[in-house]
Amino acid sequence: MTPSFNPPQRMLMGPGPSDVHPRVLAAMARPTIGHLDPAFVAMMDEVKALLQAAFRTGNELTLPVSGPGSAGMEACFVNLVEPGDTVVVCVNGVFGGRMKENVERLDATAVVVEEAWGRPVDLARVEAALKAHPGAKALAFVHAETSTGVQSDAAALCALAAGHGALSIVDTVTSLGGTPVLVDEWGGDAVYSGSQKCLSCTPGLSPVTFSPRAVAAMQARRSKCRSWLLDFSLLTAYWGGGAKRAYHHTAPINALYGLHESLVMLQEEGLEASWARHRKMHDALRAGLEAMGLSLPVEAACRLPQLNAVGVPAGLDEASVRQRLLERYGLEIGAGLGQLAGKVWRLGLMGNSASPLHVTTCLAALEAVLAEQGAPVTVGAALPAANRVLFG
Amino acid sequence: MTPSFNPPQRMLMGPGPSDVHPRVLAAMARPTIGHLDPAFVAMMDEVKALLQAAFRTGNELTLPVSGPGSAGMEACFVNLVEPGDTVVVCVNGVFGGRMKENVERLDATAVVVEEAWGRPVDLARVEAALKAHPGAKALAFVHAETSTGVQSDAAALCALAAGHGALSIVDTVTSLGGTPVLVDEWGGDAVYSGSQKCLSCTPGLSPVTFSPRAVAAMQARRSKCRSWLLDFSLLTAYWGGGAKRAYHHTAPINALYGLHESLVMLQEEGLEASWARHRKMHDALRAGLEAMGLSLPVEAACRLPQLNAVGVPAGLDEASVRQRLLERYGLEIGAGLGQLAGKVWRLGLMGNSASPLHVTTCLAALEAVLAEQGAPVTVGAALPAANRVLFG
Repeated sequence: MTPSFNPPQRMLMGPGPSDVHPRVLAAMARPTIGHLDPAFVAMMDEVKALLQAAFRTGNELTLPVSGPGSAGMEACFVNLVEPGDTVVVCVNGVFGGRMKENVERLDATAVVVEEAWGRPVDLARVEAALKAHPGAKALAFVHAETSTGVQSDAAALCALAAGHGALSIVDTVTSLGGTPVLVDEWGGDAVYSGSQKCLSCTPGLSPVTFSPRAVAAMQARRSKCRSWLLDFSLLTAYWGGGAKRAYHHTAPINALYGLHESLVMLQEEGLEASWARHRKMHDALRAGLEAMGLSLPVEAACRLPQLNAVGVPAGLDEASVRQRLLERYGLEIGAGLGQLAGKVWRLGLMGNSASPLHVTTCLAALEAVLAEQGAPVTVGAALPAANRVLFG
Repeated sequence: MTPSFNPPQRMLMGPGPSDVHPRVLAAMARPTIGHLDPAFVAMMDEVKALLQAAFRTGNELTLPVSGPGSAGMEACFVNLVEPGDTVVVCVNGVFGGRMKENVERLDATAVVVEEAWGRPVDLARVEAALKAHPGAKALAFVHAETSTGVQSDAAALCALAAGHGALSIVDTVTSLGGTPVLVDEWGGDAVYSGSQKCLSCTPGLSPVTFSPRAVAAMQARRSKCRSWLLDFSLLTAYWGGGAKRAYHHTAPINALYGLHESLVMLQEEGLEASWARHRKMHDALRAGLEAMGLSLPVEAACRLPQLNAVGVPAGLDEASVRQRLLERYGLEIGAGLGQLAGKVWRLGLMGNSASPLHVTTCLAALEAVLAEQGAPVTVGAALPAANRVLFG
């Protein structure tokens, strides 16, 4: 017989999920009610309004897709891109590559603007690609590349897209709630995120927002959306305003309780205060890491505060460091992916994991394990450096 | 400021979600750990084995898709059906119609075998359709139509498909755990379900199992799967056996805790005992409804014990009855859908909602509200009739 599952105690400082606040966990455990219950429908309206605030948008079409961040990505592409369309896709990490896959599986053409992993998207080359492909349906890019810890200039990229008559499709999975995501100010058209990063909810929901321009493009389609599940023309009849909701699929009720609670907490803290907290924790972690003698390979100007790529000292087996952190302290940090595998660790400071407790624990544990493994680290300097940032 | 959401107290006896057991809710609230954590990966293996047992299959490709039942449906079609294929689709309710949508959005041809809502799929007409369309890629049907409460003969339909060289795609969203779903015995090829019906978990996951024949068909595709998110050739690298998992998407960790717990509970009770419980609660409810003078329009031979269509007495406003049940007692029952809208209610007895408490409460509350609204019901007979079945 299989017993119940009781997870080990962990501190999550990888690329996501981040530590989920006990208030959000408690919300997930509230009794399930029906997906058409008047009380649930009223909660859906609140989730929508709270998401609009988090995205800084007035977009009517704003909802959490019932699936992981990849479902939100796929929803944007499958609703907006049709066979034969051309989409300029910026690839500077794993998630740009996934966007390309999405375009190609829709029998559309992906014009790829490639950039070295660890570098932001190059505006001049994007502009050249848009010029070389007049009539491109969309420009797709990742605001915050979770695979590298790099932030690209979303405002400039959205403006480039609009200037060339293309829609912008923007991945903000790792940025929403942690660094400014200003959908209306950017003029972003289809913007998606995830629940399990800086919103500090459990994984499984993907907030998406479409501008009126994106909605118009959806309505002007020549062909039906290829996915029934993700077809926003159907989904909005359930998520749209009004008391009379049309059943589409059974919403993940308890997951939505969790998202609601995490957005209530974000509202209580204030969006700007949350951005400032992520920035401060990053500054403290960085100060500690540098005092220890470790390097952050991403250029300071485009570093994501909530996801820190840290160079692995030469000759070190990075996997054994992660394993020891997990086994001894229950501390999870992330490995490098793709081009950066073996070269960096990824230290997440997202949502509930962006706290002095996390920064301090991570520095102390990492220093102990690195010193033990003979890495050239300065012992005893990291915590005082971090404390100066944290507590003055 | 938006306050936290506290759901009203409900008793769920609609078409799903069903009442979630406190053990499952408690599991959902356990701390989130990483989707590549060794402890989580070991739990995934248990979920897989428990699902194999629930589906009565040895299929290696057995996993919960990260989305609602409709995501499981879409996963089956998008992995198996290619543009230009022909699929025979049986439509005798809402969900057969959704299958047709799936086929057509894949640029394949749906040959529809239509049946009146409330009737099971007609075997002779399915056979004729398969004969008329040699080379059809698949036969798709709904085992347990949630919209009508009708069960079709899955064993015979799977055999017909196999006899004509077609794959069988089977919807068991409402049957899994409640009535026999015998995937290997039937010879079913792609079978999907949902977490929120007779498994009594929260909505948001869709268990799917593929036979070796379905896996071979997937591997023999001429074109890439159109969905990146649902592409089983990628997903199985994460869900597949072995300690080394390839990241695909971030799994909905806490939802999987819940599914694991609900499957552990099913194992504790025993699959056959669960089927017997659903049958007994149905017998009791039916005895009570009939004693009250209400009718069950679906023929006894193909009635789903876990979803009871009940005829609305002539001249009655069915919506006001549901509304009063919800407002007074917190009791949710389902409305009729499509062809049956206004004509039936749907009373679910699924999973944790298949209990003497639910049967008794439902009969008592329904009788009180119907009598008050002047419906021609016999008062005082329902509970004794149900009690005779429940307690002898």
